[in-house]
Amino acid sequence: MWQPAQLPSIAAQLKQRGLELDPSRLTDLTGPTMGAVVSIGGCTASFVSPEALVVTNHHCAYGAIQYNSTAEKNLIKDGFLARSQAEELPGDPNQRVYVTDEIRDITAEITGKLDPKLGGIERYNAIDKAQKAAVAKCEKPGVRCDVYNFHGGYSFQLVRQREIKDVRLVYAPPSAIGKFGGDVDNWMWPRHTGDFSFLRAYVAKDGSSKPYSKDNVPFKPKHFLPVNAQGLEPGDFVMVAGYPGRTNRYRLAEETRDAIDWQYPTNIGWYTEILALIGAAGGKDPAVAVKYANAVASYNNYLKNFRGQLEGLAKAHAVDVKTAKETALLQWLAAQGGETARLADDITALRGVLAQQRALRDRDLVLGYLNRIGLYNSAYNIYRTSIERTKPDLQREQGYQARDEIKLEGNLRQLERRMDAGVDQQLFLHFLRGYVKLPAGQRVAALDTWLGAAASDDAALVQKVAALYAGSKLTDVNERLTWFKAKRSEIEASGDEGLKLMVALMPDLLQIENARKQRSGDELRLRPRFMQAMIAYNESLQQPVYPDANSSLRVTFGQVQGIRKDGVEFTPFTSGDGIVAKTTGADPFDTPAKEYQALVARDYGSYASAKSGQLPVNFLADLDITGGNSGSPALDAQGRLVGLAFDGNWDSVSADWIFEPKLTRSIQVDVRYMLWIMDKIDGAQNLLKEMGVAR
Amino acid sequence: MWQPAQLPSIAAQLKQRGLELDPSRLTDLTGPTMGAVVSIGGCTASFVSPEALVVTNHHCAYGAIQYNSTAEKNLIKDGFLARSQAEELPGDPNQRVYVTDEIRDITAEITGKLDPKLGGIERYNAIDKAQKAAVAKCEKPGVRCDVYNFHGGYSFQLVRQREIKDVRLVYAPPSAIGKFGGDVDNWMWPRHTGDFSFLRAYVAKDGSSKPYSKDNVPFKPKHFLPVNAQGLEPGDFVMVAGYPGRTNRYRLAEETRDAIDWQYPTNIGWYTEILALIGAAGGKDPAVAVKYANAVASYNNYLKNFRGQLEGLAKAHAVDVKTAKETALLQWLAAQGGETARLADDITALRGVLAQQRALRDRDLVLGYLNRIGLYNSAYNIYRTSIERTKPDLQREQGYQARDEIKLEGNLRQLERRMDAGVDQQLFLHFLRGYVKLPAGQRVAALDTWLGAAASDDAALVQKVAALYAGSKLTDVNERLTWFKAKRSEIEASGDEGLKLMVALMPDLLQIENARKQRSGDELRLRPRFMQAMIAYNESLQQPVYPDANSSLRVTFGQVQGIRKDGVEFTPFTSGDGIVAKTTGADPFDTPAKEYQALVARDYGSYASAKSGQLPVNFLADLDITGGNSGSPALDAQGRLVGLAFDGNWDSVSADWIFEPKLTRSIQVDVRYMLWIMDKIDGAQNLLKEMGVAR
Repeated sequence: MWQPAQLPSIAAQLKQRGLELDPSRLTDLTGPTMGAVVSIGGCTASFVSPEALVVTNHHCAYGAIQYNSTAEKNLIKDGFLARSQAEELPGDPNQRVYVTDEIRDITAEITGKLDPKLGGIERYNAIDKAQKAAVAKCEKPGVRCDVYNFHGGYSFQLVRQREIKDVRLVYAPPSAIGKFGGDVDNWMWPRHTGDFSFLRAYVAKDGSSKPYSKDNVPFKPKHFLPVNAQGLEPGDFVMVAGYPGRTNRYRLAEETRDAIDWQYPTNIGWYTEILALIGAAGGKDPAVAVKYANAVASYNNYLKNFRGQLEGLAKAHAVDVKTAKETALLQWLAAQGGETARLADDITALRGVLAQQRALRDRDLVLGYLNRIGLYNSAYNIYRTSIERTKPDLQREQGYQARDEIKLEGNLRQLERRMDAGVDQQLFLHFLRGYVKLPAGQRVAALDTWLGAAASDDAALVQKVAALYAGSKLTDVNERLTWFKAKRSEIEASGDEGLKLMVALMPDLLQIENARKQRSGDELRLRPRFMQAMIAYNESLQQPVYPDANSSLRVTFGQVQGIRKDGVEFTPFTSGDGIVAKTTGADPFDTPAKEYQALVARDYGSYASAKSGQLPVNFLADLDITGGNSGSPALDAQGRLVGLAFDGNWDSVSADWIFEPKLTRSIQVDVRYMLWIMDKIDGAQNLLKEMGVAR
Repeated sequence: MWQPAQLPSIAAQLKQRGLELDPSRLTDLTGPTMGAVVSIGGCTASFVSPEALVVTNHHCAYGAIQYNSTAEKNLIKDGFLARSQAEELPGDPNQRVYVTDEIRDITAEITGKLDPKLGGIERYNAIDKAQKAAVAKCEKPGVRCDVYNFHGGYSFQLVRQREIKDVRLVYAPPSAIGKFGGDVDNWMWPRHTGDFSFLRAYVAKDGSSKPYSKDNVPFKPKHFLPVNAQGLEPGDFVMVAGYPGRTNRYRLAEETRDAIDWQYPTNIGWYTEILALIGAAGGKDPAVAVKYANAVASYNNYLKNFRGQLEGLAKAHAVDVKTAKETALLQWLAAQGGETARLADDITALRGVLAQQRALRDRDLVLGYLNRIGLYNSAYNIYRTSIERTKPDLQREQGYQARDEIKLEGNLRQLERRMDAGVDQQLFLHFLRGYVKLPAGQRVAALDTWLGAAASDDAALVQKVAALYAGSKLTDVNERLTWFKAKRSEIEASGDEGLKLMVALMPDLLQIENARKQRSGDELRLRPRFMQAMIAYNESLQQPVYPDANSSLRVTFGQVQGIRKDGVEFTPFTSGDGIVAKTTGADPFDTPAKEYQALVARDYGSYASAKSGQLPVNFLADLDITGGNSGSPALDAQGRLVGLAFDGNWDSVSADWIFEPKLTRSIQVDVRYMLWIMDKIDGAQNLLKEMGVAR
């Protein structure tokens, strides 16, 4: 997961693996290759035509497809194709395309003038203030700026992005292609998913960023990716550029152990209980099932992920491996002497901060779960925003500044489609039952006061929660939106039980937040010292260090290749025959009849692999990707589009903690399958023409 | 799944695939190879020494291991090795070894004199009577005889077996070896399970069959299998002899559809509910969890199996394939004309019988579930036995004859360890809730009478069931055993609510049984006609027909080989390295430290494969096995032991209905892994010596 700026330093490796471009071209974010790679918020995408046609994963365009679906016209099931720009459908109003213009190191601005010994809330606040100032100085209408923290505070970079707000749905295959294999095949190989869709970015006629308007015109990107319709073969060079979300590769052994012993098992327990509760309610009322369908899918997805993490971490003996590495690091530091040796003291101090955090982990987890409760979360955000509004914007809490209010309001509105008051009440009760079991050292005084006798009497707790929901109107969307506009004093005078609870809790919650910032400030001082040690040690071993993923733009390169394991070999390509073999006629293996017949007839046109004669569907590569990379273009040695990354294999799940090149593979949908579907099945010749694929 | 007697007719094929023995040697059941293969009731095993050392799967010896385990001395977890015969432990008293002496076709005796047109209850009773007579004539102390029905009544064979009743536990590896991979790896490849254990068969000094006694001596088998300690390599000939339980390969398309549309989904629903109910009760009371641990494991195993069946049947498009075959059969019959063409009328008539059975399927399923209720089943068996005892033995119902009483009594006793009255009551209520939803045509009048108003009032139903359990002592083991000795008239005068319910229900249940026998009699006339047509048709296509599995002795042969699928290749061997890679330290991947260290050090001694240098652990072969084959010896071209069959791959689950040679593989534990564990890990040199493995 290299930062683009790092690529020239590994130019020799890139050449050796097969890159035919000058690596320095990839460092130019506004140049021909990187200039075409964009973020669409949580996913990656790329421009593939001068008219801002955008290709990404089907699951990344899902919001836009769902937004345009009705009971009568189910675009998820049937797919959608605009035969002209006039037919393109407006996406979810919150859908964005972010085009990165600049990444600039601003570490000096953020921490350059701070006393290296300064920790705690002072460091936290100083960094927070400097970040907000940098963002404020950079942002303007149509331009989004963010400060990214690398290596836990070792360096900071300012990212400037053009923000495009009119994003339309152009083409999506039916879900039986785009989601073929569904949850069953999720993280699995062999895979046969046509996980691709097309959007288009629109701007005002003057080129400025405007929300959806009929008068908007397609954006003119400086660059777009050419398509290599021949695709790749086993062993070929391949790279992926995109926005990986988060990895934990440099976490300490004790943090890894905490994840294994506590974090994943505890969350698996909670998720299982939540799913049972929602499942029971959904079984009685289909309307409830619809409201929580996304939540249920997400919880199930995470459950599978958490189990995969535990399985992978155990098989990799991750704690032993990390402990050994730390021991070696400390020995090396001691051997260096002088200033370097003193880094060990800061590592010891970092362990102290981590121990403080662990001592409060159960409380913090329960508070986190409470924040997922519709009523609680609404009350919190309404009241917190009203408090923050009394301050100058730059002093407002991140997430509650003026720039965040549209999103906060949108969330209060969206709850209407995602919350059922009855289920919300049951979940609240469930988490409170977890809360009242916490030991004395992890209690929230104001919450104990509010609970009173209910803290030790379950029947009373049930009544207490019922009374809260009976006495609050925050489960009503209009009520929430009205209160969102209210002043702090009005909220503090409210008789609404939800708001009254939050007014009572807020002083304690802010105190907890402050203590957390205090610890974060210490961590912001100490973790960079650990990373400084780790980077120096790795450099002494000739191992260059890339930072943990943090949603910033990265490049990963490698080869098209499968995996050999004991008793099984995963070969790098799947083919059309595999779709036929998997087809059962029932979701998620319900191949559309037209595709099934074409595959049985092996009517591959010119899209078959020259080497195998098969129609390539998905392929494996030894690329280092994670969530956020979804939709990333897979590029050949000349920077041409040959597929889209959309998933990893089962062993890759735990690669967030420990990357094992022998076992970790990314999964891409092959460009030949995309083009074949567009040409032979869905008749999207207009798009093939626009992309310059002359067949 | 060839019958031994069929082997000479396919001798050419056997030679061509690599068999070096004369095929006719395999038809001699008392000869050197087949004479060593025995049944141990539900599993297969084989003699491997002149002292009647018996090798089978760990999961087949599980009962004997569990029987000898205590909280202090957990043989399941720790394994067990007798260093001398004196240290060998008595097995479960119900454990048997059956040595087949003779298989004789007695079709002429059973149906030879029946009018071909005779159906219904008359045919059923005539066949029943003839079978019992044949068994009675054959059986004597120490000899067990059974009549096996082939092709649904097309032919009958009498099997005579020596019944050995003193079976002792000799050696079992720890479950972390014998059950490595557990439920996670069940039906999966790559596999690394050391699924083997050793028993020994004992008889009285005079050679007669006696239950466990200190004075018993090892049985002297006429033959035992020699061991080929070099094992096999990819492509080598391999065969398996054993007792496969049941397949449905010749079921009609409509029966397959019924399994897909109704049987598996309905049972999946019931099993899921039962598991939730038992799980909730077990969560509150660990003693309950222990009592139902086996049941829960079994239900979960079946759930996974049923899902595999549905997945496989859908992917194989089984109904379409079978429909096409039937259409072709009917066309061929019509083309033959004459008597042959008239077989089609009987096939139509068979469809009529199947439709009658389907019309009552929900009722019969609920009655089947009720029969799993401890209280209900005890009352049924107690009362039914008392009724049958009033008849001459040969007229008693099969399963309730004098020869069955030991088993019936044993089951009433065993319930003590497997039933909790509270759970039993909840399950009874649960199934009754299913019963009261049945339509009018599928009701049992006497049960409706007993239910009264409770049939349409759930609260009353709850009370009714509670009153039943309050008013019955059949949940007490002594009470059950006392009543089992009672006369019919005493039971009919009993005030026990459980017995009163059964006395009230029995006339209707017997009437239902009679109607079922009526249909069975028709089926016994018609299914052989269908099979006659199918055999003739297949012979016209030069396809020899082996009968569906029916727990009788069969031989299957083929090659050591993996599978190629789209995107994945399953290679035929797993190795020690794979155990290391899977080891997490937690069940079911908690490799014993001694083994782990030896594997990491690759200390394979002389047990490595000469070809790969690896330690072979499990291997795949294209053999046709099913449940009951567990523990079967895998034999090389010369009939020497090279492993034990213990499972099939995931695609093999649905092979019970439709066998796809390209996808179906049996899984065997390799003899080299067995010997390595015995030699290097568990120090079982005494057994290696006894087996003549001089290393």
